[in-house]
Amino acid sequence: MVFRFGMSVLLFVMISVEICRMAKSETGNHEYTLSSVREALVRQEDTIIFNLIERVKFPINSRTYHQNYASFPAFHGSLVDFVVKNTEAIQAKAGRYQSPEENPFFPENLPPSLMPHYPFSKILHPEAALVNINKSIWKVYFDEMLPLFVASGDDGNYAQTAASDLSLLQAISRRIHYGKFVAEVKFRESPHDYEPLIRARDTEGLMKLLTFASVEEMVKKRVEKKAMVFGQEVSLERDDDDKGNYKVDPSLVSRLYDKWVIPLTKEVEVEYLLRRLD
Amino acid sequence: MVFRFGMSVLLFVMISVEICRMAKSETGNHEYTLSSVREALVRQEDTIIFNLIERVKFPINSRTYHQNYASFPAFHGSLVDFVVKNTEAIQAKAGRYQSPEENPFFPENLPPSLMPHYPFSKILHPEAALVNINKSIWKVYFDEMLPLFVASGDDGNYAQTAASDLSLLQAISRRIHYGKFVAEVKFRESPHDYEPLIRARDTEGLMKLLTFASVEEMVKKRVEKKAMVFGQEVSLERDDDDKGNYKVDPSLVSRLYDKWVIPLTKEVEVEYLLRRLD
Repeated sequence: MVFRFGMSVLLFVMISVEICRMAKSETGNHEYTLSSVREALVRQEDTIIFNLIERVKFPINSRTYHQNYASFPAFHGSLVDFVVKNTEAIQAKAGRYQSPEENPFFPENLPPSLMPHYPFSKILHPEAALVNINKSIWKVYFDEMLPLFVASGDDGNYAQTAASDLSLLQAISRRIHYGKFVAEVKFRESPHDYEPLIRARDTEGLMKLLTFASVEEMVKKRVEKKAMVFGQEVSLERDDDDKGNYKVDPSLVSRLYDKWVIPLTKEVEVEYLLRRLD
Repeated sequence: MVFRFGMSVLLFVMISVEICRMAKSETGNHEYTLSSVREALVRQEDTIIFNLIERVKFPINSRTYHQNYASFPAFHGSLVDFVVKNTEAIQAKAGRYQSPEENPFFPENLPPSLMPHYPFSKILHPEAALVNINKSIWKVYFDEMLPLFVASGDDGNYAQTAASDLSLLQAISRRIHYGKFVAEVKFRESPHDYEPLIRARDTEGLMKLLTFASVEEMVKKRVEKKAMVFGQEVSLERDDDDKGNYKVDPSLVSRLYDKWVIPLTKEVEVEYLLRRLD
């Protein structure tokens, strides 16, 4: 009798441990906390600046963006449209958009993932996780950001230019859509502050609650400093002679964050929160 | 009579100017000199290190390389094979491999460029321009380089890992195959030194003629310094506190150049020269 009771307890403990293990693996290993989210945003600054430095290696190469320069069979659009749409399709099959941190620029007609299921974190609220402002990012990137950074000219490297645009667009988009995680962890920290504003659809109130001017100032200064560090000419001989000769203008990187990256991240945060109670 | 003679001279001058303009555009605007080639190699160090820093953001993610983890219809190979082959096909259609600086990893069955002709420089000797050692680079990259740099672990970001591998592989491959331009400008500077060795198929003699130990030492030191600069944590508060905490180990970057990048570049140079008189 005592033996059977002991066995039952053991079985119960084993099953509980297994359930916990499964639950853990079901949400992935990655934990999202306010501090981990902030750390990720800081790390993503480096990625954006590296990719920006790589894009400005090429001049504007405007044929990359002409609607009629390239003619691909059964495809209407520019070379950059062709490269981005087709590369996204390959990446989709390879499972890229299974990750809640990735958002395609052309979600229409994207092929499904052909990869086995991976237990990515399910921290985001399902309705709100669908926020995707890549159409705005795309427009702003080509109309406003790019002309600010690249030199005029044409060196014929259109495919490389488009690939480089895609990497930079993906880095910027990932940073901006990380606003979903920012919003989620902030919401979880103080739901009582957010819920009334969400119910009242008070966009302005939400924006206010999410805005910390001093943090934004710090981010803008930090990316400017990073552009100086990563964009300098490193040589063995001189160490400080070459200061001031940067691959991208540091003040423009600060402006990039001020005018687009920070405001669009907050737009994602607000959009996310508005759907957080759906 | 004088008028007609004057018109003829004017016409002759106009035609000559046009021929010169066409000849210039036929060889592209890019000039390859010993100094421009060196400058390009130095600039490419930054690209390699940026891409290395981006790859090590992810752990090894070994499923990316398993032959049987992913199963793509009508495709045999690993996820990285799938991503690289298909991305190269898109880039080929977009004209990437029209540039003499670009070399595909999977040249077999690559679709032709769909882009209008662009007059890239034709400085390379046509027979020798075909040198492509990407099969060796591919093997060395996955068998030896990657395990040196990345942490163990699995975060599920296999598509991003494969895309990141492709960018890094392309940067390394471009640097190594730039050996063709190095060899060509060196050959043009002193053909009399090279021709007898080429005719004698004297690989060792060519290698000796191409090797400058002091320059190689300088390159290894410079990339180590670059890894320190680009891989540091940049923050506004501390400035030197964090030294020693780099995203990639700078001594490993020096080793990467010592063991693989420099020797493989010289291999390309020798291969190129051996075909230079064909």
